[in-house]
Amino acid sequence: MNTMATPAPSRQSRKIPDGAAPPSTTRVAVAGATGFTGQELLRLLSRHPAVTLTAATSSGATAARKLPALTRLWEGTITPLDADALVREADVVVMALPDQAAADLAPRLADRGLRVVDLSGAFRLRDAAARARWYPETHAVPPGVVYGLTEHARAAVSGARLVANPGCYPTAALLALVPLAQAKLLSPGADVIVDAKSGVSGAGKTATERTHFSEVHDSLSAYGVFGHRHNAEIEEGFGGPVTFTPHLLPIDRGILETIYVRVPPGTTEEHLGDIYERAYANETFVRLTGASLPEIKHVAHTNFCDIGWRVDPSGRVVLISVIDNLLKGASGQAVQNLNVMLGVDERLGLL
Amino acid sequence: MNTMATPAPSRQSRKIPDGAAPPSTTRVAVAGATGFTGQELLRLLSRHPAVTLTAATSSGATAARKLPALTRLWEGTITPLDADALVREADVVVMALPDQAAADLAPRLADRGLRVVDLSGAFRLRDAAARARWYPETHAVPPGVVYGLTEHARAAVSGARLVANPGCYPTAALLALVPLAQAKLLSPGADVIVDAKSGVSGAGKTATERTHFSEVHDSLSAYGVFGHRHNAEIEEGFGGPVTFTPHLLPIDRGILETIYVRVPPGTTEEHLGDIYERAYANETFVRLTGASLPEIKHVAHTNFCDIGWRVDPSGRVVLISVIDNLLKGASGQAVQNLNVMLGVDERLGLL
Amino acid sequence: MNTMATPAPSRQSRKIPDGAAPPSTTRVAVAGATGFTGQELLRLLSRHPAVTLTAATSSGATAARKLPALTRLWEGTITPLDADALVREADVVVMALPDQAAADLAPRLADRGLRVVDLSGAFRLRDAAARARWYPETHAVPPGVVYGLTEHARAAVSGARLVANPGCYPTAALLALVPLAQAKLLSPGADVIVDAKSGVSGAGKTATERTHFSEVHDSLSAYGVFGHRHNAEIEEGFGGPVTFTPHLLPIDRGILETIYVRVPPGTTEEHLGDIYERAYANETFVRLTGASLPEIKHVAHTNFCDIGWRVDPSGRVVLISVIDNLLKGASGQAVQNLNVMLGVDERLGLL
Amino acid sequence: MNTMATPAPSRQSRKIPDGAAPPSTTRVAVAGATGFTGQELLRLLSRHPAVTLTAATSSGATAARKLPALTRLWEGTITPLDADALVREADVVVMALPDQAAADLAPRLADRGLRVVDLSGAFRLRDAAARARWYPETHAVPPGVVYGLTEHARAAVSGARLVANPGCYPTAALLALVPLAQAKLLSPGADVIVDAKSGVSGAGKTATERTHFSEVHDSLSAYGVFGHRHNAEIEEGFGGPVTFTPHLLPIDRGILETIYVRVPPGTTEEHLGDIYERAYANETFVRLTGASLPEIKHVAHTNFCDIGWRVDPSGRVVLISVIDNLLKGASGQAVQNLNVMLGVDERLGLL
Repeated sequence: MNTMATPAPSRQSRKIPDGAAPPSTTRVAVAGATGFTGQELLRLLSRHPAVTLTAATSSGATAARKLPALTRLWEGTITPLDADALVREADVVVMALPDQAAADLAPRLADRGLRVVDLSGAFRLRDAAARARWYPETHAVPPGVVYGLTEHARAAVSGARLVANPGCYPTAALLALVPLAQAKLLSPGADVIVDAKSGVSGAGKTATERTHFSEVHDSLSAYGVFGHRHNAEIEEGFGGPVTFTPHLLPIDRGILETIYVRVPPGTTEEHLGDIYERAYANETFVRLTGASLPEIKHVAHTNFCDIGWRVDPSGRVVLISVIDNLLKGASGQAVQNLNVMLGVDERLGLL
Repeated sequence: MNTMATPAPSRQSRKIPDGAAPPSTTRVAVAGATGFTGQELLRLLSRHPAVTLTAATSSGATAARKLPALTRLWEGTITPLDADALVREADVVVMALPDQAAADLAPRLADRGLRVVDLSGAFRLRDAAARARWYPETHAVPPGVVYGLTEHARAAVSGARLVANPGCYPTAALLALVPLAQAKLLSPGADVIVDAKSGVSGAGKTATERTHFSEVHDSLSAYGVFGHRHNAEIEEGFGGPVTFTPHLLPIDRGILETIYVRVPPGTTEEHLGDIYERAYANETFVRLTGASLPEIKHVAHTNFCDIGWRVDPSGRVVLISVIDNLLKGASGQAVQNLNVMLGVDERLGLL
Repeated sequence: MNTMATPAPSRQSRKIPDGAAPPSTTRVAVAGATGFTGQELLRLLSRHPAVTLTAATSSGATAARKLPALTRLWEGTITPLDADALVREADVVVMALPDQAAADLAPRLADRGLRVVDLSGAFRLRDAAARARWYPETHAVPPGVVYGLTEHARAAVSGARLVANPGCYPTAALLALVPLAQAKLLSPGADVIVDAKSGVSGAGKTATERTHFSEVHDSLSAYGVFGHRHNAEIEEGFGGPVTFTPHLLPIDRGILETIYVRVPPGTTEEHLGDIYERAYANETFVRLTGASLPEIKHVAHTNFCDIGWRVDPSGRVVLISVIDNLLKGASGQAVQNLNVMLGVDERLGLL
Repeated sequence: MNTMATPAPSRQSRKIPDGAAPPSTTRVAVAGATGFTGQELLRLLSRHPAVTLTAATSSGATAARKLPALTRLWEGTITPLDADALVREADVVVMALPDQAAADLAPRLADRGLRVVDLSGAFRLRDAAARARWYPETHAVPPGVVYGLTEHARAAVSGARLVANPGCYPTAALLALVPLAQAKLLSPGADVIVDAKSGVSGAGKTATERTHFSEVHDSLSAYGVFGHRHNAEIEEGFGGPVTFTPHLLPIDRGILETIYVRVPPGTTEEHLGDIYERAYANETFVRLTGASLPEIKHVAHTNFCDIGWRVDPSGRVVLISVIDNLLKGASGQAVQNLNVMLGVDERLGLL
């Protein structure tokens, strides 16, 4: 994980100065606009002051059609996916496609000079063996790919041709873990456990037995134990083995991760606070709550990641990290990365 | 709607006297055992003291299989549907099948001497024109069919060959409306409106866009306005036109119906109370709450229908009727009807 | 209800032209900033481009304190309520106070030259007898009070000294009913029924038995039948008797109202569509869905009111009107009214 | 934790043989009958074939009153708490009282010859120092107290004067951990982590900010980190240090615990299965799901504890244990213990 090479913008005022948006706007297209993350992208980009949303495509569309749910917000149409049209109509393409489709399309767009933010998993793993195991549909990784955990990769994102937007679970885990790892505070050899709980929108829009209301409501279940692709992504970003257990929560949006690490006995909560302050004091989208542990409701419908921590005298640490899986865990972070790529204020369209 | 011809059993004690169950038990099969109502039937019948659950079939099964969710409750197996086997193994078949399958199977079983409780809509409507419109898959209605709204059809159910178990919405509506209609209290010509709200289990187990968690959760929507088949069933049971609007609630089980009728100005809540007491004072499964309006949580996971009412001086009446759609609205009432058919205590297996 | 005297602004583009915000901003204070609607006001106003949020008060505060939930969004402090300070620090006060406190404070602020948007019920009813019955704490109504159902009162709001912001239930009901009433389409003497369902945030932030999670979750209940104060407000806005039954939904935010009226037999859905189009075609915040009935999820977290309708050949009409009770039903409409009062683009801070 | 000294009853048939209930029934009272667990006790005991529910008390009651929610289920009355009356009217008292009240009442009842099942925490901890820290209101522990984790304490419960019914979190944790600890399979020195998630009913019936619907719904939060009294109870039952993190789920009832332990590398899931089978093969109320991990919905409204497990080659184990917190985690296990104390079939009233 890269350290921050570029300073974060000031976060003094929520109202962004007029000069923050460039005089002429960038043409942006959304490929895969009808899933949960695609819809969020349309909502965010349709009001983004530095961007013109020029196209929104869906592989399921056979003819142009309106989106009633976006009436008054975006009056454009969804069109069938057409790579040539994207090249003509857009400078940047934000892709919310299945892994296979993303693995195919992204290199073609990058070859033809477009910049891409890819929300799929196709290009997230740097390690070739891990990628071959978890994303066999990815046949080649184009040059200039950057893993876009914005707060830790700002400089690289700034010049990237293709940003691999992090997965939802890894975003919450790595924003909490990376500062402690970089500070070399974690006890070597001690277990790192990420017990993660996610809302159902993380499972996507397809109707399956698992997403049936009566299956999820009033319940909780673990899934993908020892076999979830985000485990590899967390381990690569963290730089070591991690036990990762995702659970399906009876809510629509939001992730809470309870993370167990060990630090030297006697380490205080203040000490951890100093480390997190150094990492995030100037970051708009990471909020530190200390011993007041954060809750999903505080970040739902926002691009924030809230992080809290508790330590006991033995050095047992419990970290809590929460995000909205569709925003900071997907479309919000994608727009944040887009802003960095365009050199505009990182908060545009997100506050 | 028939008036009660047979008195309801005493409800003095929840503990049912030992003599209530006959010395030898009846062999009962469940056809369609893997849907929501089928599962409830297995739960109810597996602990029923007067019944032996001899078979449970599913048209989707290709070989016998266990149901892990029923471990320790029922250790039998689900087998492929086979009418001949049902005839050999059962005296009574409770059918929780789609309308088409029920329309085909029920007459065949009845012809071969079995008694049937049918939870589908295939045989609920007496009016041939209405049935042809709403249930075109029903080609013939065997003799001896009884519409089994238990509290109002006990004598007929007792001798029935085939009981058409009422729909969930009609059960809640008719238990509230029939006593007022029989008492001739309703103002002629005034609108009767049933604004109904149901949990998602009423939509069945199939995964569709409409039953996706993210679609239902945190929302409410009306559906089937002017076109729901239960409207015809309510009108037939009530004996007049009814405006019926169902809504999909973000809960799993339970129905609340808010029913608007008019009575002569000056009619009091006490007067309505007298009418309901006459109808239901001796009924175990209908509870009257008067002006303390009932809530879904009071009846969820039970076979009760709770009914409350308010009247204003102009004669405007608001009735609230609540049931658990899978129990009193389906499988619970089916077992209640089964008990009546067998001549055993109506409460067996239900309290 | 007034007809629209001032044309609605164009809704062609979600991106509001730069000139829409005046060069110098208005100083706005929020009185009652810690309840659900107060928090929404802080969220909305802290990013409003034409407003400076100069004060936020709470009668419960004994000293200035920060709001952690608004970190990065609003870095101001909550201070104890102090009318003199409000007069010094604000040009307009938006009040989210209990009725009693609002009845006391609003006239004092208006007397001293401030303009006020009042979210309480204290000044909503024009009829003195009705007000004395439902809002006995209101001792006097200052001159210049306007009932602020924005789409139907724009001209009056524009010059108002004190805007009585409509209640949540009346907003959804009246936006659907007023166009039909104004078109004189409703059958005289026929019942008008508003069957309303609201999320729990409408009951306020105080912890009571009724707002306990275990009481509300998985349930539905009617309350306030024949005795809810919003009934009088709906009847005054509509101009006739209305049967109103509110229900408590197991969701946090959102209202759906199912409204039953009668029109002359043969009236078509297209005819109703023409009437609604005339009323709302140029309105940003009212969206017409026709026979595709709207759902709460489409308006949650927005300032929209979505209205749909169905008609049968007999003239029975079912209207569905949905809003977010905390936005279009409270704080969103308050900001919309504030925009009208300030003469700025009505959409500022709301899209 | 004691090993099983008495064999579990056969679980071959859900239908309990007639001889299982003694000819004369035991008089049982419920002290503290209006909270969530008290209500469950009334529901369970009112239909229990070997028990007569002779009294139900509430310290809040000032006069005898009916419980409308139990109409048709239990027609008795709630009376003010009166120890003398309990002694006269009951042979066994099941207490669902706050810790302080239980610490006071239980010894007095035991002194006067009654047997007691106590659902509070007052007598759960054997270690005096731990008890003084976590339950300072407990001034003395009467002789004959047994910690009633039924499956592991059957013989002792059988002769107990006072059964300390286990806490909800400890029940789920210990049923999963004890067999592995007794088999000496756990790697010494490795962390044992219990990441627990509970429905809101576990927080009790009192309306607080924390139990407000709008606070819990659509959210998830950790609480009591390093400071929950159940941590001490789990550690005492397990016999070693445990990191325990409870979370509040947006559901009403149910607990899922994700438990992380380490076993020697190469240990297989089959090996763990053998251990669990030895512990629970004859137990009715513990069901083993192996690698098909259990979910809350499978045990809600039942007295089952479902346990599943996964192991990776390094010896990392993830256990999932689920219960209904009000049944197996409180009132259900209390009735199970009562049955053992009375020498009747352990399943009476619970299936």
